[in-house]
Amino acid sequence: MKMLEERILKDGIVAQGDVLKVSGFVNHLIDVELMDECGKELRRLYANEQIDKILTIEASGIGIACLVARHFGVPVLFAKKARSSNISNSVYTAKVASFTHGNVSDIIVSKDYLNKGDRVLIIDDFLANGCALMGLRELCRQAKAQIVGAGIIIEKEYQGGGNKLRAEGMRIESLAKIKSMSVEEGIEFC
Amino acid sequence: MKMLEERILKDGIVAQGDVLKVSGFVNHLIDVELMDECGKELRRLYANEQIDKILTIEASGIGIACLVARHFGVPVLFAKKARSSNISNSVYTAKVASFTHGNVSDIIVSKDYLNKGDRVLIIDDFLANGCALMGLRELCRQAKAQIVGAGIIIEKEYQGGGNKLRAEGMRIESLAKIKSMSVEEGIEFC
Repeated sequence: MKMLEERILKDGIVAQGDVLKVSGFVNHLIDVELMDECGKELRRLYANEQIDKILTIEASGIGIACLVARHFGVPVLFAKKARSSNISNSVYTAKVASFTHGNVSDIIVSKDYLNKGDRVLIIDDFLANGCALMGLRELCRQAKAQIVGAGIIIEKEYQGGGNKLRAEGMRIESLAKIKSMSVEEGIEFC
Repeated sequence: MKMLEERILKDGIVAQGDVLKVSGFVNHLIDVELMDECGKELRRLYANEQIDKILTIEASGIGIACLVARHFGVPVLFAKKARSSNISNSVYTAKVASFTHGNVSDIIVSKDYLNKGDRVLIIDDFLANGCALMGLRELCRQAKAQIVGAGIIIEKEYQGGGNKLRAEGMRIESLAKIKSMSVEEGIEFC
């Protein structure tokens, strides 16, 4: 998506440790108009699919998911990071390793809101090693919900997580796919 | 807001410990259409005000803030809960006690994104004792940003936090204001 790629080149900051900072328009200060355009584009890409629900993960996925969901006319369910190890029977749960924070979290969704047969579109801001998507896929597996696909704002394609999941059969649409990135050379898109 | 009050009466659950569960449409599964209507109503209430930025707090405020922000045509900045005590110089920080989780968090926003003179509308899902609003007000004070007002989905008016802040000069518009609530008697709105 050209508008998004241009914005990443203009305002994204490549930092040491393979980090792309987009906190000025994606995941701290949110450019609502741009994310709304991303929602429109994802609606176009998934135009022929019936979607019942959008699933995302807190925190930075939530705003984007809500803006995307408006174009689909469906609710958003966000997986929460469990705040204690005391997880009740009323939730589905999976483990997610965070690339950014270098730790592992339990994520949960209430069994009341993710149901058998639900046709789910997963939305997230970043796709790198694919751990968040794998965690959300696991929640859907437990619920017997069906994943129609995923919509991602920025995929670090060279990290391989997206292509691994595609090879396993998941449809993934990423609006900006980064082929390579370094502090010295900058960003190259696929 | 009648549509919201009716939904709270229909799907909200009053639980022991003075808890109102609205996780089926506000803060776990999000009814995007309803929250979009809330955004439209807040735009109407703040129609005569210039707003530069919407400020909220993770996690459940973010989705609502983004849907509201679309009606104002402004970006959303969300305060993050600090994950370590190692807070850098590049952020403003405040402490927020959580009614729901019974703990105290440090919240932070980057100094890059909350600026002197910014005219800020604060958005959150709940207002009870007012701790989140006080924390966000403190961030704005540090940044010398100006709070135009707050927009709240559900205020537990009887807990007094909102009226204390109003008495201190903050404009607060709450779309549903609960006068009293109990497991036995249910919910009464103001």
